[in-house]
Amino acid sequence: MRKTLLLAALLTATPLAAQLPPPKPGDFPSPAEIVAKAPKADWHAIDRNDLLVMDLAPDAKGKPRRVVIQLLPPPFSQGWIGNIRKLAAAHWWDGLAVVRVQDNYVTQWGDPDGEDRAKARALPNGLVEVPQSDYVIDPIRELAKLAMKPTATAKEREMWRGYASMCSFDPAKVPKYPCPVTTGSDEHSGLTYSALEYHFGGWPFASNYTEEWPVHCYGMVGVGRDMPPNTGSGAELYTVIGHAPRQLDRNIALVGRIIEGMEHMSSLPRGHGELGFYDLAKGDERVPIVSVRLAAEVADLPAYEYLDTEKASFARYADARANRRDPFYIRPAGGVDVCNVPVPVRRVQ
Amino acid sequence: MRKTLLLAALLTATPLAAQLPPPKPGDFPSPAEIVAKAPKADWHAIDRNDLLVMDLAPDAKGKPRRVVIQLLPPPFSQGWIGNIRKLAAAHWWDGLAVVRVQDNYVTQWGDPDGEDRAKARALPNGLVEVPQSDYVIDPIRELAKLAMKPTATAKEREMWRGYASMCSFDPAKVPKYPCPVTTGSDEHSGLTYSALEYHFGGWPFASNYTEEWPVHCYGMVGVGRDMPPNTGSGAELYTVIGHAPRQLDRNIALVGRIIEGMEHMSSLPRGHGELGFYDLAKGDERVPIVSVRLAAEVADLPAYEYLDTEKASFARYADARANRRDPFYIRPAGGVDVCNVPVPVRRVQ
Repeated sequence: MRKTLLLAALLTATPLAAQLPPPKPGDFPSPAEIVAKAPKADWHAIDRNDLLVMDLAPDAKGKPRRVVIQLLPPPFSQGWIGNIRKLAAAHWWDGLAVVRVQDNYVTQWGDPDGEDRAKARALPNGLVEVPQSDYVIDPIRELAKLAMKPTATAKEREMWRGYASMCSFDPAKVPKYPCPVTTGSDEHSGLTYSALEYHFGGWPFASNYTEEWPVHCYGMVGVGRDMPPNTGSGAELYTVIGHAPRQLDRNIALVGRIIEGMEHMSSLPRGHGELGFYDLAKGDERVPIVSVRLAAEVADLPAYEYLDTEKASFARYADARANRRDPFYIRPAGGVDVCNVPVPVRRVQ
Repeated sequence: MRKTLLLAALLTATPLAAQLPPPKPGDFPSPAEIVAKAPKADWHAIDRNDLLVMDLAPDAKGKPRRVVIQLLPPPFSQGWIGNIRKLAAAHWWDGLAVVRVQDNYVTQWGDPDGEDRAKARALPNGLVEVPQSDYVIDPIRELAKLAMKPTATAKEREMWRGYASMCSFDPAKVPKYPCPVTTGSDEHSGLTYSALEYHFGGWPFASNYTEEWPVHCYGMVGVGRDMPPNTGSGAELYTVIGHAPRQLDRNIALVGRIIEGMEHMSSLPRGHGELGFYDLAKGDERVPIVSVRLAAEVADLPAYEYLDTEKASFARYADARANRRDPFYIRPAGGVDVCNVPVPVRRVQ
C-alpha cells in the first residue's frame, strides 16, 4: 500500500495535460501528419551505442537486407544485453541463420545446430546466466536508487522522468493519453491482475504497480530460451511479426526492438516445420546471416531519433491513434492499446 | 435502458461456465493441445457457399499460392458480400493484382488502374451501393427479428445462440472467458465509449450494447474505399497482416477472413510507394492474381471446420490463451484481447 502511494505521488509529478494546447475546431491531423510536423525539439536521439546491425544475405534480386536493432537501456534486461554485446563483438552470429518464421508470431535467428551439442557453435567466454527475476524490474526500487545516486546520468534521469510524467491515476489530468488499465483474473491462483500500459523513454511498457516490464509489441526483440527460465543466453533471438503475443510478457526477456529493416524479417517465407521452424526436408531454406555488429564496427550507419514519448507531439500522436478524426475516419475508436501506438523512429534529418 | 436490460436478459440465457468441468491439478494443456484434443462434436462445419478462392501467380520457386477466404454470414455486411459474389462469378479479379503491402498493416488487392477512369476495368452490372450504417448491426433489432421469424434457419439461430451464451454481464458466471470490456473517451465529442469484445459464430466481434461489429484482427478481410463511406464496392479488398488496426473498426466494412494461405499474403514483399502501394518506378512488382472463384467453381477445394466458439473446447482454448499454464510459461497473463484468440480452423478430418 505504501508502495502504491509513493508511486502515485511520483506519477503525478509532471501532469502531461498541461503541456497540450487544446485542438482548434477542424484541426484534426492524422498521426502521420502530427509526426511529420513535430518540431525537432520533440525528437530524441537514439544512442548509437545501443544499436546492433544485422546484415542478412541479399534477397533473390540481390538487394541488401540490413536490420537495425535498438537495445533496451538500463535497468531493463541488462544481463542478456551484456551477453548480446559480447556475442556481437565476437562476431558470433556471422554465418548463422534465420531458423524460424511462424506466421502471425515470430521470426527467430541463431545457431541452426544449437540443440546439437556435437555441432553447436561454441559460445564466447564471459556470458552470464540471468535469473527469471530480471524479466521485470521493481520501479519503486529503481526510482529510489536513482534518487539516492548523485552520479545518475542525464539518460537515467530522463528515463524515469518519462515514467513519472506519462501516467496519472487521475484520468481528469491526462485526457489525451490515459494509460489504459488492463484487468483480468486467474481463478486457479485466485489472483486478480491489473496492469497499466504506457510508453516512456521511447518504449512500450506495462506495470502492475510493483513490477514493470517491456511488452511484446510488433518488432520487439526477445531472448529465446528452453523450459527453465534462466536458460536464454541471448544467442537465440526473435522478433514479433504479428499481433502482439502479450502472453509472452514476463515469461521471456525482451532486449530491444527493430528500428529499421523490419520488413526483411516480416516478409520472409514461413517455415513448414513444427512451430514454423524451417524444415529443409520440406523444401525450406534458412536465411543466412552475413554478420551482426555493434554500431561501433559499422562505418556507414546513419543516426536515428525517436519521437520523444515525453513531449507534446507524442501525446498528440497517441491521442490521434486512439481517436482518428482525420478525413477518412467517421468514428473515433475512443481508445487504443499500447502496441497500436508504435513509437515513430526515423533517420536524423 | 430498456434495450440494455433486454440484451442482458438474452445474454444470460445459457451460462457458459456450467459447461466447463474444472481443470484437475496439473492438467494445464497448451492452447494447441486443447485444440488437438477437442472432440469432433466441438468442431463446426464452414459452409462451402461462404468460401472464396483466390489463386495468386506461383511464387519464385513455382509453388502455387492459394488463399481461401470465408465470407461473414448474415446479418453482417451482406451488401458488400453480395457484390463480392457477383464480382467472383464474373471472374472480375482474374488478371488483376495485389497492389499494396504495407508492413504491420494490410495487403490489398484489386485493379491497379482502378483510380484511372480511362483504364479501369468495368465493374459487372448489378453491384449495389451500401450505406455507412451497414458497418455495424443493431443486435437487439436482429435478435427481435429472429425471435419473430418462424422460418429462421438453424444457421441463423445458432449465430445468435452464440451471442446469447458467450458473454455475461455477471463476471462470476463466466470465469473462464469473460468478455473483456474496453473503455475509452473522446473529449471532443464528450462521449465515453465502452465495448465488449467476444467471439460468436466463429468470429471476433465487439459491441457497445446498441451496435455490434466484426473487428479488425489479423487475417480479417475488408473493403477498401475512398473518402465517402459508401464508396467501397467490394472490388478492392485488403487483409490485416500486422497488429490489429482497431481504429478501422466501424470506419470500413469487414466481409470475411482468410482461413488458409494467409502466409501468401503476409510474406509478400512490402511496397515502396506511399502507404505501401507497389511502385513500379521503384523496382516493385505487383503480384498477379490468376483467378478468384466462388467455391462452387472450384473442383479440388477441401471442406473446412472451425472450433465452435459456443462449445466447451473453445472456452478452454480461450482460457488457456489468456492464462498460459503449460510448462514453458511461468506467469499467466490474466487476460487476453479478442484478436489474440484466433479461432482455430482446419481442413475437415
